[in-house]
Amino acid sequence: MNSVKVATAKMLAKTVNGVAVDDLFNTIDAIKATPAIAKFKFRIRNQWVDAGQNCSTADTFYGAGQEQSRPKPFVLEADEPPVLLGKDSGANPVEHLLHALASCLTTSMVYHAAARGIHIEEVESSLEGDIDLHGFLALDKNVRNGYQGIRVNFKIKADVPDEKLQEVGQLGPGYSPVFESLTNGVPVSVTAERL
Amino acid sequence: MNSVKVATAKMLAKTVNGVAVDDLFNTIDAIKATPAIAKFKFRIRNQWVDAGQNCSTADTFYGAGQEQSRPKPFVLEADEPPVLLGKDSGANPVEHLLHALASCLTTSMVYHAAARGIHIEEVESSLEGDIDLHGFLALDKNVRNGYQGIRVNFKIKADVPDEKLQEVGQLGPGYSPVFESLTNGVPVSVTAERL
Repeated sequence: MNSVKVATAKMLAKTVNGVAVDDLFNTIDAIKATPAIAKFKFRIRNQWVDAGQNCSTADTFYGAGQEQSRPKPFVLEADEPPVLLGKDSGANPVEHLLHALASCLTTSMVYHAAARGIHIEEVESSLEGDIDLHGFLALDKNVRNGYQGIRVNFKIKADVPDEKLQEVGQLGPGYSPVFESLTNGVPVSVTAERL
Repeated sequence: MNSVKVATAKMLAKTVNGVAVDDLFNTIDAIKATPAIAKFKFRIRNQWVDAGQNCSTADTFYGAGQEQSRPKPFVLEADEPPVLLGKDSGANPVEHLLHALASCLTTSMVYHAAARGIHIEEVESSLEGDIDLHGFLALDKNVRNGYQGIRVNFKIKADVPDEKLQEVGQLGPGYSPVFESLTNGVPVSVTAERL
């Protein structure tokens, strides 16, 4: 084989669903050898703009044993629609929560399918969650402030039998950090000081 | 008074922290009269791109008794950094979760302070959460997949005594839908079908 064919064959062997599976298994081996590198700290900073409008930046995090940073921070905007007294300059916080859930379920599915050698062609999902403002507005103590329930539906294109397709669909819930955080709950400490 | 002064006085009276407090109290009265208008359904759709890269759109939601839509969908992108086998084209899902939490805590603080007539000049927050990849990678069943804990620190500029500043700092945890969802957990159903 010429060098182009060799390079192509090597690339095909190492990448499933766009995921470099050799790197994934190397990561697992590295963590087995040095468990401390599995510890990550993710961060954002947020700044209030006006009313329901505010803005987060995500740049640095700690992981794989060292501080990590992006060349340029990611900027994430939030606002509320007019019916919730905002100016609708961005998705609102509870929509961002659904995005966090959808993106994490999808990535977890795709990575864990790649580790199993399952090729996925397309994935789409739609999410819907219920909130009753009686909670947020403190009008009824029996109504929770947050989501009462969230429904996720995945559509997956992959050349696998129906049973395997259902197994793939459960990889997200099985491994997703956001799904696990949101369904089981996370301790969150909140402190305040004067600026 | 001339018409400009009247208009200015009216605006000053009705807006605290950028929030139209008269509209807020009108909303509360409307919900007391017609409880069903408090029920909201928020939605997003997500599409996988490649490996850890995917994209959500947020446009329609149901609330205040009717379908609501934005003139143009909000597009929310996610990816993973290279150390997590992505191309770093966007914040990752667990960073988006921190943004959802920060933005919701901030908006909840600002709105509920406005309802109490407390003027806030500036708000900043920094968030950090711990994840151990032994969970996501299924290397240790005793390690959870998601966040082990999240720390939030607010810096608030407001002309209020220290005790009141601390009360303001607790308005977010007291009312935020994302904080309440994340700390107490939410039932999430996930179904999959063939595309």
